[in-house]
Amino acid sequence: MTSRRTVFRSLIAGLAAAGLAGAGALAQDRHQFDEETLATVHTLSEAALDSDLAYDITEDLTTKIGPRLAGTPQEARARDWAVEMLTELGFENVRVEEFELDLWTRGHSIYEEVAITAPFPQPLYATSLGGAAATPEGGLEAEVVFFASFDDLLAFDDAEDSLAGKLVFVNDRMVAGRSGEGYGWANRKRTQAWFHAEDRGALGVLIRSVGTSSNRFAHTGMMSRPEGRTATIPALAVSAPDADQIERIHDSGETIRVRLQTYAGWRGEVISGNVIAEIVGSEAPEEVVVIGAHLDSWDTGTGALDDGAGVGIVTAAARLIMEQGERPRRTIRVILFGSEEVGLVGARAYANARLQDGTLADHVIGSESDFGAREVWRLSSNVADHAIPFFDEMHVQMQHLGITRGPNSGGGGPDMLPLQMMGMPVARLNQNGEDYFEFHHTPNDTFDKIVPEEMAQNVAAWVMFTWFLADSDMDFRDPVDPEMSE
Amino acid sequence: MTSRRTVFRSLIAGLAAAGLAGAGALAQDRHQFDEETLATVHTLSEAALDSDLAYDITEDLTTKIGPRLAGTPQEARARDWAVEMLTELGFENVRVEEFELDLWTRGHSIYEEVAITAPFPQPLYATSLGGAAATPEGGLEAEVVFFASFDDLLAFDDAEDSLAGKLVFVNDRMVAGRSGEGYGWANRKRTQAWFHAEDRGALGVLIRSVGTSSNRFAHTGMMSRPEGRTATIPALAVSAPDADQIERIHDSGETIRVRLQTYAGWRGEVISGNVIAEIVGSEAPEEVVVIGAHLDSWDTGTGALDDGAGVGIVTAAARLIMEQGERPRRTIRVILFGSEEVGLVGARAYANARLQDGTLADHVIGSESDFGAREVWRLSSNVADHAIPFFDEMHVQMQHLGITRGPNSGGGGPDMLPLQMMGMPVARLNQNGEDYFEFHHTPNDTFDKIVPEEMAQNVAAWVMFTWFLADSDMDFRDPVDPEMSE
Repeated sequence: MTSRRTVFRSLIAGLAAAGLAGAGALAQDRHQFDEETLATVHTLSEAALDSDLAYDITEDLTTKIGPRLAGTPQEARARDWAVEMLTELGFENVRVEEFELDLWTRGHSIYEEVAITAPFPQPLYATSLGGAAATPEGGLEAEVVFFASFDDLLAFDDAEDSLAGKLVFVNDRMVAGRSGEGYGWANRKRTQAWFHAEDRGALGVLIRSVGTSSNRFAHTGMMSRPEGRTATIPALAVSAPDADQIERIHDSGETIRVRLQTYAGWRGEVISGNVIAEIVGSEAPEEVVVIGAHLDSWDTGTGALDDGAGVGIVTAAARLIMEQGERPRRTIRVILFGSEEVGLVGARAYANARLQDGTLADHVIGSESDFGAREVWRLSSNVADHAIPFFDEMHVQMQHLGITRGPNSGGGGPDMLPLQMMGMPVARLNQNGEDYFEFHHTPNDTFDKIVPEEMAQNVAAWVMFTWFLADSDMDFRDPVDPEMSE
Repeated sequence: MTSRRTVFRSLIAGLAAAGLAGAGALAQDRHQFDEETLATVHTLSEAALDSDLAYDITEDLTTKIGPRLAGTPQEARARDWAVEMLTELGFENVRVEEFELDLWTRGHSIYEEVAITAPFPQPLYATSLGGAAATPEGGLEAEVVFFASFDDLLAFDDAEDSLAGKLVFVNDRMVAGRSGEGYGWANRKRTQAWFHAEDRGALGVLIRSVGTSSNRFAHTGMMSRPEGRTATIPALAVSAPDADQIERIHDSGETIRVRLQTYAGWRGEVISGNVIAEIVGSEAPEEVVVIGAHLDSWDTGTGALDDGAGVGIVTAAARLIMEQGERPRRTIRVILFGSEEVGLVGARAYANARLQDGTLADHVIGSESDFGAREVWRLSSNVADHAIPFFDEMHVQMQHLGITRGPNSGGGGPDMLPLQMMGMPVARLNQNGEDYFEFHHTPNDTFDKIVPEEMAQNVAAWVMFTWFLADSDMDFRDPVDPEMSE
């Protein structure tokens, strides 16, 4: 068995090699798929473009379960729903792999009372960030210290001024882009501002929502827990129009005071789980191609784009492959992860279990759909150099779907990260995310935002992708590392 | 003095005549404005296109006051703000005309707890309609009776079935259009469903929001009070995505139960008021051209489009006329009405006071800006036939602003209605309202939705319009009715 450290080192080596070489830069022959494979994938693509299955699955999940915060009874109901749905669709080995989770909830309501009390009293639309603490009973009111950026907070000098007894506000804006490029930078304030503020004695943190919408929704999301540390102060996102209001009042030179009353907090250990289903391979059933999505969602929306759509897309893709009649060489494993939003907890549990049971190296490749339901515009990969022409040729076959070829670098989706860190090759069907962060982690993430035709294009891409990978005998790992090909 | 009944009759006659004749259909000569007038209006238009004043006024109101529900301390603060602002801008006769108002409020919070409890428990985003009652203490839970349309509710036969002890849901959809054509029809359920439901023993009413957005905001708004009747049941709008959810569950054949807890209700008599300011006319100061907007807003947004923008537009237009140096013949009266949203209470008080003080006939013409801040696309009028060429020629002069000529029928804006009913001619600069009902009466009606350039085009249209009307000696009333020209 491969140790975690060895696999991780080989991943780094592989990434470096790929980075130096560039996608498709090696002078290799064009990969040839046989006629039968090509006939199968194009038949599958046609069927997918005509299918409403992904849309129907997503509608069912978001209607019958709605919000399904990690670790809550709603997420448990979603697992029951998924087991029933996958069984009815004819999948094999349908099962739940449970794991333990530290439960965080907002409290008794989706609403939290936040208001400017001075100089211009008015309510603010705000929502606690995941991991935040509650206010003291009865709420708290304090002066706001305005930081134009997260970097300004980092640079704050305690010797010159003090945040003790105050509320920190951080205002960085996120820029919209097709690949969501602006998210990581803007998200630093969401994940990290709390402990920088707490360490300086602040009573709480407010941030401009990490999102690109000007709608009056606050975007929630998880905060980091460095070394398992637990926040003792409230931390909330305010909507962009409310952040504008705070910014305007600050710019006018007035001192702002804000009152908040929240009930968020950690509730102890509970059970969450991943739901797994398979199409068992005909020739190499032990070899697994993972296609995933996550079942949990945030609590304020119904999790249609994040990630009900992914659940619909990968499930429908696998089901269409099943309907086509022929089993692929390898096993297709659909994994609907639990507790993604709260820190990839399900994905880590899955990967750690594979380390324990010795099946990690059987995971040939993996990918997740978790970026909404807009069209796929790019095929990216992160595989050994020798496998790049295979992906280049997959791309050629997908061109009728309007898909370009992306780099041979990066990830396979959030829930693939733990497996990727342990050496599993990944690939991704990149979706157009230019409006994903309009809805992300808000009440506005609802089913009506999905366009059926765009979703069907996703499924068409996924059936081709999944069949190509699962019916192949290509090893996507780097053969120079003997431990990878064991 | 003209009696109310006589004036109203003459208005009807005038409307009928105009309807038969059509705008500009009479073979009349083209109206000629003198060179000086044309030079003035085009200079004003240029200045307006370069001015940020309307934008700045709206920003100030929506930032410093924010929400300003009729009859609340926030609306009183808005009056103080307006008096100070108008005085600082150099207006004459700045004053408040107070009136009494029955106060309705949502309760202690902008949030109200509503949820589906069966078959698929999940929260609903909903907001009480103006005039609705609270739930019993502790809330209520009941089965939902689904009506696809308001007409279905009207047709409900008590003999066949019963609404007693149930919640009524009405689902009519509003269609978007540049003139907001879909509003009136869709709005019947908001204004009237409650008493049809109450009369049949229903415990409460839910409606699909009257609005065109698919954002997860519920649209509030006032309910009718036929013969002063007061609702005894709660009545709420749910957001469009939540209405979709209810519709889907209903369509699946399941019985839906909803729980709600609200605190809305009537709070007794309070003081509201209209804020008035003038540019006194040079030759006929007793003749008044009214340009209006309303100062109050709903409580969930900051009332930027409805109607902070109108406040900014008409105030800036009058101020630019003042800055240009020359007084118009007639008095320009800026009226910032109070308590518009709750039933044109300020507008009725103003008109009734003019009936009492005998100055009604001095009101030469009136218009209001109350449809957001998008560009003006049409000049409509409702004036005597002989004055149509005057408006036709006004339109010719406004063509550089992209404005078309509308019909000689219809109103001058909501707050002009009581004066119009008493015989005052009206006109309107119709704004593009294709997205107005995305934001209308929701938390999302905030300052960031305003485009400065579009607002400046509005002011350019308003300075021309106001100068043309105020510097003229044209009588816009029908001279065949002697009582109109007294």
